[in-house]
Amino acid sequence: SPSFDFNHHSHRRLNPLTRSWVLCSPHRTQRPWQGKQEDDDLSKRPSYDPSCYLCPTNTRANGAHLQNPDYTDTFVFENDFPAVQQNQPILLHDSSEDENSLLQVESVRGQCHVICFSPQHDKTLADMAEPEIVPVIDAWISTYKAMQQQGHINHVQIFENKGAIMGCSNPHPHGQVWSTEDIPQETAVELENMAKYRQRHHRCMLCDYVKTETDADRKAKADGSADPLSPTATGMNGTHTSSHTAETGPLAGTDPTPPTTPTSTTFPSTKTMPSATTPDGSRIVCENDSFICLVPFWATWPFETMVLSKAHLARLSDMTSAQKQDLANILRRITCRYDNLFRCSFPYSMGVHQAPTNDDVSHQELSHLHLHFYPPLLRSSTVKKFLVGFELLGQSQRDLTPEQAAKRLADCSEVHYKSAV
Amino acid sequence: SPSFDFNHHSHRRLNPLTRSWVLCSPHRTQRPWQGKQEDDDLSKRPSYDPSCYLCPTNTRANGAHLQNPDYTDTFVFENDFPAVQQNQPILLHDSSEDENSLLQVESVRGQCHVICFSPQHDKTLADMAEPEIVPVIDAWISTYKAMQQQGHINHVQIFENKGAIMGCSNPHPHGQVWSTEDIPQETAVELENMAKYRQRHHRCMLCDYVKTETDADRKAKADGSADPLSPTATGMNGTHTSSHTAETGPLAGTDPTPPTTPTSTTFPSTKTMPSATTPDGSRIVCENDSFICLVPFWATWPFETMVLSKAHLARLSDMTSAQKQDLANILRRITCRYDNLFRCSFPYSMGVHQAPTNDDVSHQELSHLHLHFYPPLLRSSTVKKFLVGFELLGQSQRDLTPEQAAKRLADCSEVHYKSAV
Ligand SMILES: O=P(O)(O)O[C@H]1O[C@H](CO)[C@@H](O)[C@H](O)[C@H]1O
Ligand SMILES: O=P(O)(O)O[C@H]1O[C@H](CO)[C@@H](O)[C@H](O)[C@H]1O
Repeated sequence: SPSFDFNHHSHRRLNPLTRSWVLCSPHRTQRPWQGKQEDDDLSKRPSYDPSCYLCPTNTRANGAHLQNPDYTDTFVFENDFPAVQQNQPILLHDSSEDENSLLQVESVRGQCHVICFSPQHDKTLADMAEPEIVPVIDAWISTYKAMQQQGHINHVQIFENKGAIMGCSNPHPHGQVWSTEDIPQETAVELENMAKYRQRHHRCMLCDYVKTETDADRKAKADGSADPLSPTATGMNGTHTSSHTAETGPLAGTDPTPPTTPTSTTFPSTKTMPSATTPDGSRIVCENDSFICLVPFWATWPFETMVLSKAHLARLSDMTSAQKQDLANILRRITCRYDNLFRCSFPYSMGVHQAPTNDDVSHQELSHLHLHFYPPLLRSSTVKKFLVGFELLGQSQRDLTPEQAAKRLADCSEVHYKSAV
Repeated sequence: SPSFDFNHHSHRRLNPLTRSWVLCSPHRTQRPWQGKQEDDDLSKRPSYDPSCYLCPTNTRANGAHLQNPDYTDTFVFENDFPAVQQNQPILLHDSSEDENSLLQVESVRGQCHVICFSPQHDKTLADMAEPEIVPVIDAWISTYKAMQQQGHINHVQIFENKGAIMGCSNPHPHGQVWSTEDIPQETAVELENMAKYRQRHHRCMLCDYVKTETDADRKAKADGSADPLSPTATGMNGTHTSSHTAETGPLAGTDPTPPTTPTSTTFPSTKTMPSATTPDGSRIVCENDSFICLVPFWATWPFETMVLSKAHLARLSDMTSAQKQDLANILRRITCRYDNLFRCSFPYSMGVHQAPTNDDVSHQELSHLHLHFYPPLLRSSTVKKFLVGFELLGQSQRDLTPEQAAKRLADCSEVHYKSAV
């Protein structure tokens, strides 16, 4: 009777930040793909494009004949077609009255900014040098701080859509910042779940998560034990021994709950040990002193990663100058690995989750600085994962396991394929 | 000082089924689009394609040399590359142990079916006749019932991905059914919120929602009053009078809570009346005796619609034969309107939400049969809405209002543009 094998058997994993489940169907990677092929962007871009409305000195696309300055590192301006506006009437959501209403609505004021990452039209984070990335982080911080001064702003969402396939309408390297009166859904849900975790465990969820993945890594390196979820683990099945759980369980040494004795997982099983999914660092892509980049246990997108600060930092502006360098370092390294994975300018949506700008002091404790990378590609530069029918109506679904994805990214070089000769 | 205008000012609306907010930025429809253009599928398909693995009598794509029968209406078979499988080991999620774990996982067994809607390769629901759609509904029902017999199946998700842009790898008209041990995330969340609503109001949320939209419609037709959210309403602003609220408020006459006296919404306002968003049927696309198709108040996708049964039905199999005809009727009409909107074979993901197959009797009361259509197109057959950066990291965002979308769909003909001469 076969054991449960994470590399072959369908399972679902819980995202503790959103409390939503993701279905993982690893055997489905064998499925032939006869569907849509994306365009492969092979065009060599010039370093200056006279028709680009983001290049230095060019005229912007808003009809107001504004001209960009001759900027030399980053350039921040207000979005010409903002999704939220500062100057509009207010419509308040009155929750007492609303309880009975199925038509709940409230106004959202805010401001939208565009941040050009570089004057050079043909650059991306993946081929910028680390000292060139530091000013991008500085622009994120200064925009956040400027918005913090605005009384009506409570949250600042920093993000980048990269690639036409991700709805980016201009290849000039740039990101956006949408600052709003409300705390957007995703952040609100993350904060809620992190608050519940803190209430129960008196610790930060993401501090614990970093510890889970890295303690295990150290442990695995030391004694050769392997995560049953690891694509390189011997046997690759769900059979565990009690010694593993006791010594290297996810929260071993940090939690008062005594580990129960695990049993072998045989088929058909009525009881098993999810808590015995002893991690061995198999989801780690790269790290430095201040940050770790990993494929989260609950990743939805095929090559989704998270960048987490190792220390408990609530926001980008809490970083020391060394941590800022380290963030630039990790950003260059993960984006370079992404480009090398399919030898293309790797598309993604990426963004920063940090403390809201409002004056709720609990957020300092609750928020743990992290970035999410959501890249759509699955098999090659032209075959993406479609999160459609079942995913929209039922549950997110992925094919390769997070551990398999992490291994592929960990195997990629940190020298960009275009510069490697 | 201007009033709040739903057609110009950013606001967010709450989806009561998922309790998530959607940002609506109506002024953003003026934004020029310089990004990705999707391929326009202008190819005329043959009614039989010898290379299609779904056409009658052809060989399937699984390498097992299975041959399709010479079917005449629908054809159901097990997916050759299923996301869930019946025959695999079990890994149980033990919630007592798991409380402390950030690595929660459980196995998911199940079965995946493909349902060919028609033997004709070039048909879609939009150009099938209603009597041809009835067998599709019958196939949904018989598959649901067959799965209900399987002890380990608790939920049956029926859906269709239509169009290459929605990850559909074969244009032959077909849908899928994924039957699983778990109740998928979306359905679980909907059921949870419907249960809370019922606990509070002792009524079904979606029965109330249908009533909200249709009572208002009747009322508006009778006295000419207008929803401030309607694109055709005079003034199109948020100013309300108390008589509107008292007479036609969303749950007027159905709820014991007395309506409070609304005030005019002026700028800057500190108080307004979301519950006074008096509906006037402006979100209704089409209806018949048994079903209504509307753009929900909280729609995320530009032309998202919901089809709801007017009576409280828990599942497709509870329909009378007249209701089944009516569902075929509404499916043909909405898909035809979709095709006519941009004069193309309109892509979407669509699916049925109904009671799970498990034996939880409360689901009979809780579930209210409905279908969701999630179509990606925004401006034309080649420009879609990208739910990316801000949407993934922050909050869903739409440009045109649900009322504007409903008006455009309501203005479309129910005679297919290809057959209209
Ligand atoms: O099963 P298909 O049609 O090959 O695949 C399509 O639908 C599935 C269910 O929504 C998705 O998981 C896939 O990403 C999509 O390409
Ligand atoms: O603002 P952009 O880059 O023109 O637009 C892009 O990013 C936005 C924020 O994620 C999305 O709402 C748009 O759908 C997308 O096309």
